[in-house]
Amino acid sequence: MPSGPRGGSAIDAAIDDSDAVAFVAIVRGDDPTGRYLTGVELGVETVYVRAAGETHLRVPSTVDVPDVSGASVRVDDKPAGKAAAAILANYAEGGTVLAPRTIPHDAALHLESAGYELTSTTAVRDARAVKDADEREAIEAVQRAATRGIERAASILADATVEDDTLVWADAPLSTERLRRQVNTTLAIEGVDTAGATDVTAGTRGEAGSAVELAPGEPLVVSVAPRGPAGYRGALARTFVVDADGGWERRAHVACDAARDVALVEANVGADAGFLGSEIRAETAAFGFSMADEVTRDVGGGIGLAVREAPKLDGDTELVAGNVLRIRAAITHGDHGRVELTDVLVVGDDGPQFVGDAPTGLDPSRW
Amino acid sequence: MPSGPRGGSAIDAAIDDSDAVAFVAIVRGDDPTGRYLTGVELGVETVYVRAAGETHLRVPSTVDVPDVSGASVRVDDKPAGKAAAAILANYAEGGTVLAPRTIPHDAALHLESAGYELTSTTAVRDARAVKDADEREAIEAVQRAATRGIERAASILADATVEDDTLVWADAPLSTERLRRQVNTTLAIEGVDTAGATDVTAGTRGEAGSAVELAPGEPLVVSVAPRGPAGYRGALARTFVVDADGGWERRAHVACDAARDVALVEANVGADAGFLGSEIRAETAAFGFSMADEVTRDVGGGIGLAVREAPKLDGDTELVAGNVLRIRAAITHGDHGRVELTDVLVVGDDGPQFVGDAPTGLDPSRW
Repeated sequence: MPSGPRGGSAIDAAIDDSDAVAFVAIVRGDDPTGRYLTGVELGVETVYVRAAGETHLRVPSTVDVPDVSGASVRVDDKPAGKAAAAILANYAEGGTVLAPRTIPHDAALHLESAGYELTSTTAVRDARAVKDADEREAIEAVQRAATRGIERAASILADATVEDDTLVWADAPLSTERLRRQVNTTLAIEGVDTAGATDVTAGTRGEAGSAVELAPGEPLVVSVAPRGPAGYRGALARTFVVDADGGWERRAHVACDAARDVALVEANVGADAGFLGSEIRAETAAFGFSMADEVTRDVGGGIGLAVREAPKLDGDTELVAGNVLRIRAAITHGDHGRVELTDVLVVGDDGPQFVGDAPTGLDPSRW
Repeated sequence: MPSGPRGGSAIDAAIDDSDAVAFVAIVRGDDPTGRYLTGVELGVETVYVRAAGETHLRVPSTVDVPDVSGASVRVDDKPAGKAAAAILANYAEGGTVLAPRTIPHDAALHLESAGYELTSTTAVRDARAVKDADEREAIEAVQRAATRGIERAASILADATVEDDTLVWADAPLSTERLRRQVNTTLAIEGVDTAGATDVTAGTRGEAGSAVELAPGEPLVVSVAPRGPAGYRGALARTFVVDADGGWERRAHVACDAARDVALVEANVGADAGFLGSEIRAETAAFGFSMADEVTRDVGGGIGLAVREAPKLDGDTELVAGNVLRIRAAITHGDHGRVELTDVLVVGDDGPQFVGDAPTGLDPSRW
């Protein structure tokens, strides 16, 4: 399991490259950047300063002091930018300070008025986009749990019977919400967090939470993106149809399955991430679906401590070994609903590989 | 269940008060502000602009367009500040624009270079701090589920037997991790999200995830903070001891129970939030615990879409009717571990009231 702070050497290299004196980040409590940089869940707004190979943190006085390996932690309630400037004063009275371009505006103004010149850096975002072996292992573990969750849904749907055009399981009508709770129970037993990301949609009849009763013949999308104990996310979505009549959803499923396979051909080291995204969409459309109205625009992107992180599948980023991608193929139609297949894929020197071996089929009894 | 956008009228009033032309926020995917302002889970960085009583959103082209009640949604991939300026251009060519003080620095610079003068506002933070009836109902519902989760832990601990100084349940040693998974299973069945916030700690022997085996005589803290379907959080922590010998943990528990009751006396409309926090700490210390080393500094604060939001229990905020507070009393000792009681409390015109009726005792068989 990944533990301890990460990103320090990437930050030090960026500081050297820019002749800067330090790197500053203001990390909100729930920002995965904090977990990455410190190795712990901070829970509160934290000032992170890296200078001369040393890490300093500042937390507010309303929390107990966290124990962060290799960092000195101070406690005060100054505005974040002033707290950062107070730490920087021990290293230099002015000069260039690196920060993410999204550093809070008030903190940037405080740092500038303390005599530091801000330059934006993508060092942390770029470091996070390349996963080491421990991080990949954490993603593989949470993806195994995700597979168990979808497997549970498949098993319930395979056991369901049809009565009056409604699916019935364990002597009661099966609703999106009931199926969602069963999937989440499995995720809890597997020891991962549901992360508010489990959704079950039934045909065109609304999202999870509204407890729509499931019917035969309509596409049921079961989607999970749990968080493992070290914070890393998985992502898996499958579409099932009970008593499929072989119409729209079969054709959409064939298209999504083919689009998913595009990643195995195109997600190579050195490939253009934007091109990969376009190719997934183009392959989906090639089966006769409208690029404008039916093919999803969300075909995935980097996944790690966040479900959406670098690299994006737009723009002209080049894929590198260690990128881990969410790959999503989906088609939506106003009369039929949605068909979707989502997986996690690792970009490696020996080619791209899906994490785990979840089947892709529409028939829940084939799982 | 709370649904639809919130905060619009508070923003409009702030715009009027400042003779501003608009309000701008850049909302990250996982920022609860986005859920508050739009009523939906956006999942991606979204530009929010409110002007002349109208709401505009901008999302990136890599996602499907969200359906947000009462808002017009546009899609492009400009930097957030430029996208906001493009929307503002339809209303005014310059003038004052309100924004949270933490607006990303790059977006602030783009807006300024487009001719707008930024003024910071706390309108959204302040609006979120006062919960309406629907929001309070959502918090009450998730707190009921939280109580079921802790109840499950109590029931397992009450059934556990002691063998060789280890707790045994269902024919196997009971660990922090095993108990945590059981609590999370109950939360899943109740239909709420575990939100990565379920922790079980045993005496001084490390945090959840390390799967420490539970022993009799040591304080076991079970802490949950689930998220309900509308995004609102609960918070509940209880401390149990199996076969307590009446030592440190009993004394610490009496202190925490008394400190918790302070909220029922002090959390009144018009009271100083910082004073409430100090009084909770002072009451804990009054039982002979060190304010510097043993009494927690995290005695709570506002709770809603985030576990930590306004009002803070430091500074000189005045409590108002509709504030919902997490109230936490905790004592940590290097040789004994931690004793903690956490609850949610509503500040009302007829006085403060804890949400739910979870017992506070140390003995799990009394639940």
